[in-house]
Amino acid sequence: MEKKVSGSVINRLPRYYRHLTDLCDSGIERISSKELSRRMGVTASQIRQDLNCFGGFGQQGYGYNVEFLRTEIANILGLNRGYTAVMVGAGHMGRTFATNTKFESRGFKLIGIFDSDPAVVGTEIHGIKVSAYSEIGEFIKANKPKMAILTIPKDATKKVAEELIGMGITAFMNFSYTELAEKEGIIVENVHLSDSLMRLSYKISDKDDTADKERGVEL
Amino acid sequence: MEKKVSGSVINRLPRYYRHLTDLCDSGIERISSKELSRRMGVTASQIRQDLNCFGGFGQQGYGYNVEFLRTEIANILGLNRGYTAVMVGAGHMGRTFATNTKFESRGFKLIGIFDSDPAVVGTEIHGIKVSAYSEIGEFIKANKPKMAILTIPKDATKKVAEELIGMGITAFMNFSYTELAEKEGIIVENVHLSDSLMRLSYKISDKDDTADKERGVEL
Repeated sequence: MEKKVSGSVINRLPRYYRHLTDLCDSGIERISSKELSRRMGVTASQIRQDLNCFGGFGQQGYGYNVEFLRTEIANILGLNRGYTAVMVGAGHMGRTFATNTKFESRGFKLIGIFDSDPAVVGTEIHGIKVSAYSEIGEFIKANKPKMAILTIPKDATKKVAEELIGMGITAFMNFSYTELAEKEGIIVENVHLSDSLMRLSYKISDKDDTADKERGVEL
Repeated sequence: MEKKVSGSVINRLPRYYRHLTDLCDSGIERISSKELSRRMGVTASQIRQDLNCFGGFGQQGYGYNVEFLRTEIANILGLNRGYTAVMVGAGHMGRTFATNTKFESRGFKLIGIFDSDPAVVGTEIHGIKVSAYSEIGEFIKANKPKMAILTIPKDATKKVAEELIGMGITAFMNFSYTELAEKEGIIVENVHLSDSLMRLSYKISDKDDTADKERGVEL
């Protein structure tokens, strides 16, 4: 893949990947951009534009080959590279995420879970035994995971991230209700669940205002 | 607020709001776009462009009044409208989200939690007693919540959403690892945690390829 794909297309690729996976799972072999558009709630022309970056899988009168397109998107996202990850924090968030996520089809194998609370060390999450956080340095040295998932309290986040960077971790998925800044050579995805709440709040209030306007209410 | 704000600016507003809230909490009263830019890791010109939509709070040589700008963004997001929400699903995800989220500063008051599992009905989450799902119709009729948070298994999502729409719910935050389609009059925010995993996978593989290229490795 030589061609550079734009950031906004990259941001949309996981969604295409999920939809194409659902189609594969339902045994659907090909799909028109019109039907894919209906399922995804975006315009067919947006889909054609996005997927044109990856060459001509879409054929006039045939549509897209679902499995082929899905594999191509997986390749672009690097989902088949066998990356490994550790998780720090075995509280509710860690447990939920570790239990419900199909890591391996999303690019990562979860190979270790760590926590500093003796009450959870030794318990098992989705087949992985929680280890003491004090052992993570040895583990990273031996197993060289590509990424760390932080499901720890806000106050501990910066300190733990610095420690892990010192141990060689260069990518983070951070759930910790605080932002971890990207810096030279370090990749960060901050997950802010409450941003979705705020976007909902905006959409609801925008809809309410529009309804008020239509009824002639002074704003 | 008459002026229409673009969708991409709206998507960025929650992040501004979080950063401005942190600044307020640290007692900082004003900030230059340069300093805000450094903290947020975006260009100062992007910030000026985004915030110009809301009129001239940014003054040459003064910067932004933090509290004023924060309040203005809160107003645009509708965070002060006193919307209410119910949650369906009191498993790990529901518990985590209900416990860790500052609902009221994110636009919503959580007023009820429901589950169909007798083992969790009656337990308490963050001061709210979990009720039987069979009672949700009465509750909605009496309390008219604006929004429902779905933290239930994938297979139950569509059915529950349809039932709640029948009871008058018109907005959803859906955590359920499946997409709920937006339809006429219904507002949906689907939260896909594993999309962040895939974006990380892309960023890591993109960085690896670049490093390989710089070392002259054939791809």
